Amino acid sequence: MKDASANQTAKKAAGEAAADLVKSGMVVGLGTGSTVAWTIKRLGERIREEGLEFLGIPTSFQAESLAIECGIRLSTLSQHPVLDLAIDGADQVDERLYVIKGGGAAHTREKVVACSARQFVIVADESKYVKHLTHPVPVEALPFALRLVEKKLLELGGRPVLRLGKMKDGPVITDNGNFVLDVDFGSIEEPVELGARMSRIPGLVEHGIFENLDELFLARESGLERIRREE
Amino acid sequence: MKDASANQTAKKAAGEAAADLVKSGMVVGLGTGSTVAWTIKRLGERIREEGLEFLGIPTSFQAESLAIECGIRLSTLSQHPVLDLAIDGADQVDERLYVIKGGGAAHTREKVVACSARQFVIVADESKYVKHLTHPVPVEALPFALRLVEKKLLELGGRPVLRLGKMKDGPVITDNGNFVLDVDFGSIEEPVELGARMSRIPGLVEHGIFENLDELFLARESGLERIRREE
Repeated sequence: MKDASANQTAKKAAGEAAADLVKSGMVVGLGTGSTVAWTIKRLGERIREEGLEFLGIPTSFQAESLAIECGIRLSTLSQHPVLDLAIDGADQVDERLYVIKGGGAAHTREKVVACSARQFVIVADESKYVKHLTHPVPVEALPFALRLVEKKLLELGGRPVLRLGKMKDGPVITDNGNFVLDVDFGSIEEPVELGARMSRIPGLVEHGIFENLDELFLARESGLERIRREE
Repeated sequence: MKDASANQTAKKAAGEAAADLVKSGMVVGLGTGSTVAWTIKRLGERIREEGLEFLGIPTSFQAESLAIECGIRLSTLSQHPVLDLAIDGADQVDERLYVIKGGGAAHTREKVVACSARQFVIVADESKYVKHLTHPVPVEALPFALRLVEKKLLELGGRPVLRLGKMKDGPVITDNGNFVLDVDFGSIEEPVELGARMSRIPGLVEHGIFENLDELFLARESGLERIRREE
């Protein structure tokens, strides 16, 4: 990315374009990230300008705060277990629309929201878009299971590193009270199979590979590109 | 079980026989249940009578209390991530040695301990031993994911019921702060496949199907039967 302001302009355009997917009456998952923040801000404008009425389900405290600031009415997964749409950011998206999330240690809740939605959309800039996933996979693990989870991840070919806090001594603690491992697998050719293997590790709560993305709003400096999953 | 006292005698004999597997220097997972309680008591006797020295890793508060009472030195999974042996009880064991656990809502920790052990042994009376597993499968789920987990379990053919407290209003809360669903699948012919499918459900922390049992100490009224997994 040579031109930081061109990148910012592209991200704003992509984020705002995704806001057009929301129609009155919908229940919408609202995610976290610098691009999806533009979506949430644009939704606030549409509420004020057009009288758009919908319910937001935030995936994080950060999304919740921004949504409240933007005047979006919020609800919960208990009240609305089926969402019409979820819009979120990503750490990395590959050409087959497999996704790695969890940089913010919220991927478990993000995945539950994404999987509760009829349509799952990610907004991201082109620096996140790759042929094969290479980003370390965030993995949430129960604290007492740490050593077993590390051992099993090593057996799967990963190099797990316990994520440490920057504003807190010791490990990062998730909203669910657990640890996060960042697991480098190199280039991931078979994300679905790797994810299924990780899911079976006892004490591993959730890994950051998402396989249910329907559409990517890709912020390119040359303009917005929308990429749909091929059925 | 016609004769309750004969059943008690059989359970005591099986539980005590399993205690003979422990050798000095071992690290041993200690589980919960009325039969494995005899194992723990017998280990206490062996410490006093023979000077047996080993470290216990309890799977529950109940196992921890009994082990302390019996004079067993305890340690943790962090200090000893690889156990020589784990001995636990079960809700049900089938003829291929697949197991359902979680009646005590501690199956997540029990599974982590069992999978950290080189050898995993269950002691149970013959009322638990069946051709195919039919016991409802306990499933630990993150509270905010409850509705999604229920929906996905229904799609897998299960009938999930939220476990409610008897000495607490509302749902049972696990030691990890989560809910428990008891999921009736009828007769389970393919426990490994079902377990793998459940593991992939977002927000599902751990299910109660165990597939790594090495040996069953079966307390029959006619005497102890030891059943090893065929390799």
